[in-house]
Amino acid sequence: METVSTALSYDGVQGVYRHQAQTIDCEMTFAVFMPPNSKRPVPALWYLSGLTCSHANVMEKGEYRRMAAELGIAIICPDTSPRGADVPDESDNWQFGSGAGFYLDATETPYDKHYQMYSYILGELSELVAVNFAVDMSRQGIFGHSMGGHGALVMALRNPERFRSCSAFAPIVNPMTADWSATAFGKYLGDDMAGWRKYDAVALIEDGHKISDLLVDQGDADSFLESGLRPWLLEAACQNAGINLKLRMQKGFDHSYFFISTFMDDHLRWHASRL
Amino acid sequence: METVSTALSYDGVQGVYRHQAQTIDCEMTFAVFMPPNSKRPVPALWYLSGLTCSHANVMEKGEYRRMAAELGIAIICPDTSPRGADVPDESDNWQFGSGAGFYLDATETPYDKHYQMYSYILGELSELVAVNFAVDMSRQGIFGHSMGGHGALVMALRNPERFRSCSAFAPIVNPMTADWSATAFGKYLGDDMAGWRKYDAVALIEDGHKISDLLVDQGDADSFLESGLRPWLLEAACQNAGINLKLRMQKGFDHSYFFISTFMDDHLRWHASRL
Repeated sequence: METVSTALSYDGVQGVYRHQAQTIDCEMTFAVFMPPNSKRPVPALWYLSGLTCSHANVMEKGEYRRMAAELGIAIICPDTSPRGADVPDESDNWQFGSGAGFYLDATETPYDKHYQMYSYILGELSELVAVNFAVDMSRQGIFGHSMGGHGALVMALRNPERFRSCSAFAPIVNPMTADWSATAFGKYLGDDMAGWRKYDAVALIEDGHKISDLLVDQGDADSFLESGLRPWLLEAACQNAGINLKLRMQKGFDHSYFFISTFMDDHLRWHASRL
Repeated sequence: METVSTALSYDGVQGVYRHQAQTIDCEMTFAVFMPPNSKRPVPALWYLSGLTCSHANVMEKGEYRRMAAELGIAIICPDTSPRGADVPDESDNWQFGSGAGFYLDATETPYDKHYQMYSYILGELSELVAVNFAVDMSRQGIFGHSMGGHGALVMALRNPERFRSCSAFAPIVNPMTADWSATAFGKYLGDDMAGWRKYDAVALIEDGHKISDLLVDQGDADSFLESGLRPWLLEAACQNAGINLKLRMQKGFDHSYFFISTFMDDHLRWHASRL
């Protein structure tokens, strides 16, 4: 692992790191914020970003450091897809390929060689973080935005023993049927939609996956609300399954980092109280 | 004035606006954050950005909205130079031309036609803001970073009747003699250095300009500290002039927005208590 940069911020350290990822066969960059004065290992909170983003967007615009420093939580921000000259991509399609890994393990060629973001984050990257930072991997939480909200929900639902807390900003709750993800799912996972269900929060809940509770913020002025996000589908699934979902429709807010940063403190407190 | 975008953030509105600027003969973009629930006009706090920045950098990375919303202050972020195809520039020089207007009124051709940022901000842009936003122009403050810290100091020192408060993050305090500004000053203002003094905080103080008090934060791990910033020159000038300078050397901090955002709350409180 190579250190790209570190900067003191709110008396913690915001770092950017790079490593050769075996799982997905390319060089990957990620960000870690370590809070100040951590005498013992601190909880690890994963933040997964949305379409077109890298590790950098939330690091620059998410406004998480003040509260993470106060609460004593590490924030880990992976990239959203494999990258590099060898990685198949559709450069004119922001909903597929680079910046659009959808946090799944692709089964279809030529995507299966690199697009293994589910295994990469939960496996190789987690091990790298555990070895290189003073984090307590028995206290992990996960959250994210949009495509990253989808990723956080899926990872938490499938790994309840691992993630003690989960929340999301404007998540894609049912990517199998959403405009901006169904096509990508087909390319990554093939035609058999049975295989898609393990990467779909609503389907996972329908199939019996559980989580203790869940916080979701969704702006009601979000232009993707009807076509891509549809939190009411998650609400119905949680209700049927007896999952305690705290869904907050936020009046007047859009899909941007201006929305995310406004409610960042609430999410960090949600996780801290469960970690 | 045209609205480029608005987004709800911390229950205030972060807007970006565009207008045809007569003073500098080009189209200019700027950002305004209006705090929530302002029943009466709110104080106007100007933020001037550093080299290479536009209005957008501090809007995205400065983390000012939470506290500005709480304190009820409008934050106005101009661009750092004139821009456009007609505006003379040196595209390979980040210390001159686009992104490097140095908040002065150029006297030398061909720069004098567009590079009139001092007059543009204090005149035309101020009038535009006064007309279009619910701000109380009798309560104005100004702050900034690096080149923008220089701009804030100069504007406050020369207009004490107008700005009730001034602060800076890592300002260029003596641009006449600093590595990264002296060459630009020569091109904008000509060879006669007597004309440079009205755009130099240390020189202005030496020449008798006063300000009641001043807050400056400076990271001691800032790579530009010795060559460009040199806050000790401001300290000496203030001491001689009896100006109350609160200079805080911040251990381990660099020149980045990670530094700015860490101390943003302190600066906003500094201004609020004087506005």
